[in-house]
Amino acid sequence: MAGTPAPFTAADYRARMDRAAGAAADAGLAGLLVAPGPDLVHLTGYRPPAVTERLTLLVLAAGQEPVLVVPTLEAPDAERAAGARGLTLRDWTDGTDPYHLTAPLLDGDGRFGISDNAWAMHLLGLQKELPGISFVSLTDALPMLRAVKDEHELVRLEAAGAAADGVYERILKVRFCGRKETDVAADLAALLLESGHSQVDFTLVGSGPNGADPHHEAGDRVIANGDMVVLDFGGLMHGYGSDISRTVHVGDPDPEERRVHDVVRQAQQAAFESVKPGIACQEVDRVARAAITEAGYGDRFIHRTGHGIGVTTHEPPYMVEGEERPLVPGMCFSIEPGVYLPGRFGVRIEDIVTVTEQGGRRFNTAARELALVE
Amino acid sequence: MAGTPAPFTAADYRARMDRAAGAAADAGLAGLLVAPGPDLVHLTGYRPPAVTERLTLLVLAAGQEPVLVVPTLEAPDAERAAGARGLTLRDWTDGTDPYHLTAPLLDGDGRFGISDNAWAMHLLGLQKELPGISFVSLTDALPMLRAVKDEHELVRLEAAGAAADGVYERILKVRFCGRKETDVAADLAALLLESGHSQVDFTLVGSGPNGADPHHEAGDRVIANGDMVVLDFGGLMHGYGSDISRTVHVGDPDPEERRVHDVVRQAQQAAFESVKPGIACQEVDRVARAAITEAGYGDRFIHRTGHGIGVTTHEPPYMVEGEERPLVPGMCFSIEPGVYLPGRFGVRIEDIVTVTEQGGRRFNTAARELALVE
Repeated sequence: MAGTPAPFTAADYRARMDRAAGAAADAGLAGLLVAPGPDLVHLTGYRPPAVTERLTLLVLAAGQEPVLVVPTLEAPDAERAAGARGLTLRDWTDGTDPYHLTAPLLDGDGRFGISDNAWAMHLLGLQKELPGISFVSLTDALPMLRAVKDEHELVRLEAAGAAADGVYERILKVRFCGRKETDVAADLAALLLESGHSQVDFTLVGSGPNGADPHHEAGDRVIANGDMVVLDFGGLMHGYGSDISRTVHVGDPDPEERRVHDVVRQAQQAAFESVKPGIACQEVDRVARAAITEAGYGDRFIHRTGHGIGVTTHEPPYMVEGEERPLVPGMCFSIEPGVYLPGRFGVRIEDIVTVTEQGGRRFNTAARELALVE
Repeated sequence: MAGTPAPFTAADYRARMDRAAGAAADAGLAGLLVAPGPDLVHLTGYRPPAVTERLTLLVLAAGQEPVLVVPTLEAPDAERAAGARGLTLRDWTDGTDPYHLTAPLLDGDGRFGISDNAWAMHLLGLQKELPGISFVSLTDALPMLRAVKDEHELVRLEAAGAAADGVYERILKVRFCGRKETDVAADLAALLLESGHSQVDFTLVGSGPNGADPHHEAGDRVIANGDMVVLDFGGLMHGYGSDISRTVHVGDPDPEERRVHDVVRQAQQAAFESVKPGIACQEVDRVARAAITEAGYGDRFIHRTGHGIGVTTHEPPYMVEGEERPLVPGMCFSIEPGVYLPGRFGVRIEDIVTVTEQGGRRFNTAARELALVE
């Protein structure tokens, strides 16, 4: 495993906050309201001890000092965040009205972007306090706020991808046949942690018919000879995500299993090759879908082709029909077409890809050919 | 440990949904919109595999069949939920508009209660689709929706409390002096799991000056002779929460440490004795606060007196100034006054209490006197 990257500094976070406030102004917004979660981690390094009904909210507006509204109880935690020195804390105590405290920080006639995952009760509290204000979700207003990664982030994502590749190579050597899906999932989790991940987000193992449900996690089913097995796993390393899927086979595959795997692999390759700056996100989805449809499995590809990745394993940009925004160098996302045959098996192949001026570059380079396991 | 209570059935969940829809109608609401999280678990037993930007929403309205809107990908998970047989699933695929799908289920001129923690992006999506609709957070509209527990829930909360008491009694026998806070926190977590808890939510250990920060979790500080140590821990057992705080002392306390502990203990007792049906929640807070203020520490009691508990360890009703709603038999909440002396130490004592016709009944009965540990 490579060395630990240097931690982000208060200046790094302040620069991100200033860029975000600038992007908001460029988009015609009066500012941004950022709730606990990945947006707040990205902009300030702060992760509250628990997300509760108590309002914590970062207020960003161009030309204004960033203000983090926090419950008094949690102010000591917030002060310790790496980005805290680049903002002003404004705390409120139980029994006082946090919306009333926040209102003077906002242009009451303005339009603000707000974190997708801000709580509805907080949005309603602000709408009531400031009837002239309007809101738009960050994904609608500035969907690409966190989507374009800087070089320090790309280093982290590449390292996480390489670590996940290593986990895949090691899992090929464990026994599948006769063990439960949950046993293989536990192996994947242990290998992710050994590889340097600090957090395991998911370890999906879908054997035989379970593989036909793309969101099946891992269950008590005992994996048998002749099973296709979808593996999809990832987590966080140095604060950035990994996410890889491969589909393996226990013993010898039959011709249809080989054929479906080839179809998915070729669709994934075609979608990868379509990546270049300026094309619409939906184009990546269309290319993958066209390849699968042409092979006769179009109605069995029942999810979008990809999602962004960064401080979370699931964020914009989405490679989905209707997402017309263009790919920009520095974006990082999954390309993960699949085919799901109910009652029989599923196949999914997924890499994390980043956009460069020259086209796509994969952060997962583990072999995509159908691997046979025991 | 007592036997496992029988699981809730689809009929139990349907009865809860019907009661909730009825309560909404009584409150003048057109219905309720319930997002993933504790409200959805309580009403349907369903916990999505992950909470993402994809809309999952339960629509309840009096006289209407409950409908759960889910992403197609997650429909198989939703179908397996214990409450699924008491509702209709309506799924939507990536690339289609879930708000457009949901809108016809709603009275577009009505006022709806919505889960506190529903995502702002979903609320904005519905507001845009139905400009005539209005919303109020569930805590504002029906704060007591989950607050009054039925007998099956009380059995679970009582068992969780007894298990937490047992953990406290056992932690008194471990060594504190010379070990890190995190070591004692790990002991607490292990004991909670051994006691039958399925999930540990928090294990706070605040020694010496760290105890003066009520939200300090546990750190590298080595506990020393002469330290006060605040312990606050809990989690879920059979789906219901425990939460207990006690403050212990390593070696002999000095007179002020004893005095502050006595003040908090007497405040906790006085607040407990104030519990009876019909008094305002804020009255419990006032009684605790008056006792501490009279002893000269009023400005050092920097949080509210309590919070409800159920399928989460933190929910309405809140024992806080301004909460004028009355106590009702079956409500369950914490009473946890504290005194925090910055740079020196803190004291907090907390029990879970339920309201009966005759007054309060504690689910935590572990000794509240200052325990001396080694």
